[in-house]
Amino acid sequence: MRELPFDATDPRLAAAAWSRLVEPGDPAAGTLVAHLGPVEALDWLVGVVRRGEAAGARPWEQAVARWAPRLEHLDVRRELDVLARLGGHLLVPGDPGWPAALDDLGEARPFALWVRGRLAAGPDDGARRQVAVVGARAATTYGQHVAAELAAGMVEAGVAVVSGGAYGIDAAAHRGALGADGHTVAVLAGGVDRLYPAGNSALLEAVVAAGGVVAEVPPGCAPSRSRFLARNRLIAALGAATVVVEAAWRSGALSTAAHAATLARPVGAVPGPVTSMASAGCHRLLREQAAVCVTDAAEVLELVAPAGAHLPEPPAVQPGLLDGLDPRAARVLDALPARASAAVASVARTAGLPVADVRAALGHLELEGRVERDGSAWRRTRPASPRRAGR
Amino acid sequence: MRELPFDATDPRLAAAAWSRLVEPGDPAAGTLVAHLGPVEALDWLVGVVRRGEAAGARPWEQAVARWAPRLEHLDVRRELDVLARLGGHLLVPGDPGWPAALDDLGEARPFALWVRGRLAAGPDDGARRQVAVVGARAATTYGQHVAAELAAGMVEAGVAVVSGGAYGIDAAAHRGALGADGHTVAVLAGGVDRLYPAGNSALLEAVVAAGGVVAEVPPGCAPSRSRFLARNRLIAALGAATVVVEAAWRSGALSTAAHAATLARPVGAVPGPVTSMASAGCHRLLREQAAVCVTDAAEVLELVAPAGAHLPEPPAVQPGLLDGLDPRAARVLDALPARASAAVASVARTAGLPVADVRAALGHLELEGRVERDGSAWRRTRPASPRRAGR
Repeated sequence: MRELPFDATDPRLAAAAWSRLVEPGDPAAGTLVAHLGPVEALDWLVGVVRRGEAAGARPWEQAVARWAPRLEHLDVRRELDVLARLGGHLLVPGDPGWPAALDDLGEARPFALWVRGRLAAGPDDGARRQVAVVGARAATTYGQHVAAELAAGMVEAGVAVVSGGAYGIDAAAHRGALGADGHTVAVLAGGVDRLYPAGNSALLEAVVAAGGVVAEVPPGCAPSRSRFLARNRLIAALGAATVVVEAAWRSGALSTAAHAATLARPVGAVPGPVTSMASAGCHRLLREQAAVCVTDAAEVLELVAPAGAHLPEPPAVQPGLLDGLDPRAARVLDALPARASAAVASVARTAGLPVADVRAALGHLELEGRVERDGSAWRRTRPASPRRAGR
Repeated sequence: MRELPFDATDPRLAAAAWSRLVEPGDPAAGTLVAHLGPVEALDWLVGVVRRGEAAGARPWEQAVARWAPRLEHLDVRRELDVLARLGGHLLVPGDPGWPAALDDLGEARPFALWVRGRLAAGPDDGARRQVAVVGARAATTYGQHVAAELAAGMVEAGVAVVSGGAYGIDAAAHRGALGADGHTVAVLAGGVDRLYPAGNSALLEAVVAAGGVVAEVPPGCAPSRSRFLARNRLIAALGAATVVVEAAWRSGALSTAAHAATLARPVGAVPGPVTSMASAGCHRLLREQAAVCVTDAAEVLELVAPAGAHLPEPPAVQPGLLDGLDPRAARVLDALPARASAAVASVARTAGLPVADVRAALGHLELEGRVERDGSAWRRTRPASPRRAGR
């Protein structure tokens, strides 16, 4: 075991080294670094490996055996050079700009973040709200439309959109945010030097320019399946809430929702046609009451805002014939025939009301212009055609 | 005040008389009849009106004044004649065939039911399950399709479909049940002599023939707005659960759902596109957790069945590359390049696993035919094309 080729007493370099040495979410490494700090933890690891002390089957020896293969070629200066050439920067816990939300992950907190662009829209990042919008790669036109609409509505309310940069819902969410000149962050499963998937590279370049692209693994790392699953915990943690727009019955987006629930963050699910398998995972979340039903940006904002701050207004409804009437008057008006007159006694029988009540109600309705007398009988006022009324 | 022209000491005639005298759901009449029985209550009313005792403003005097206008022309023999000519029959509480479910309404229980066809599919009506399927008149093609599918799936499982005979969702639910040769019941707001709405008269005749059409008001009564709202409590009570398929933000179907909730009956709501205003009421129910999300007949049956009796099966999913593998083997397989070979040390670095673990996992994967040796390196087994495998 040679010496490490970089200054392993530098906490930033040591944190970066841990992000290269172990797979994201490795619980033993998280515990070790949380308790010793990255420098001491690395020093301990190098010593153990050099002395060949980790040959047994005890859990810590297994962990060291897991990490040792990568220790041999470790040189984080290379990865940092790549990041610098791309104009990116490294963030470690405690740095200004480190997202405090990630600290909720406890020992599963990433060792470092490899960032291109900006994670936060402004210097007041702590006060800013971010919401994760995630969903199926195999999204429908409907799902992509809704994801883009939600994202646009969110950024218009000053809420940034976090997603995973994937095809389908993720891409639509990033696009919706960018289209509304909002801030959006893509959390990648692989290194930020390769904007994966390749078909989204132009979109992700735009996310770098207007927002941020971030990974917990250094440049050069491939986006493997286990890294995708581990990455989902970062999306869930960065979002003050997570919204699933479309998801199949089994879907990575559901793992993000589960992480959000574990973190006690609200989860929203967008419903869709029950005939669409792309919505089956969302309906599953709703059915299991693991998510709140959300249908527009206002309802998404309700998930993260103090109750009432973004109360959605009920949609405008055409006023009906009987609107605004007390129940008795409504019953009397309803009892009048549509195109003929009726005597008070007949209206009372039809409405099932006392004659005196019917008389009183007809008087009020007459004042409101809703009924008129026809000799001793009553009839509904014929509504003036709007066209004629205008002339 | 003349004598009543029928035998008012006959409990069946007296109950029928009350169903004509008062508007559905009149709380004072419900209380009175519940405590005195229909015969004594009617005798009391006739006496009070004859003696002119109900001229004041006290609640019971107001109630009598409300009922008196209809007492004058009351002759339920006419309505019973009309019903008999239509081949129908009257049911009063306690009759064989009286739906015990209606007794849950307490004093809001109807005084009588005017029935054409059969309310129950067989003599074991108590054991039979009925579920209410309701929704918007202004339904979409999607909603009508789903309502018919749900109804067909329900009757195939031996569950009858209760609805309101209206255009849109109601009609689709009745049609779906009839199309699957199932039992369905339409609860009308007006008399069963006029199958309302007229555009559904052929459908409702088919419901009479294969199931039943029922009302709590006698023949001759018009379906007024207040009767529609009161009718909804009967639909909710007859169903062991209520499912709302499509409903606008304000919709009569939501009143049925509210009645079901009051009766502690489960409520289901079918989601739809958030872009469809016809689903806004369903999403509102889901959002307010006033309904369970249901997407197919099996999930509707879950609402009324003992837990687990109708457990819906998760949809079939294409098996993936890494399915059925333990996490370590999955990580090793994932770390192998897609189209090249790799040495064990390289796989260990990529996977972040000890070399010994990688060797062990590769051995297992080899036995399963998922990887193969390539000299001292390893590669994924190329899956045989199914076509060639068959030859």
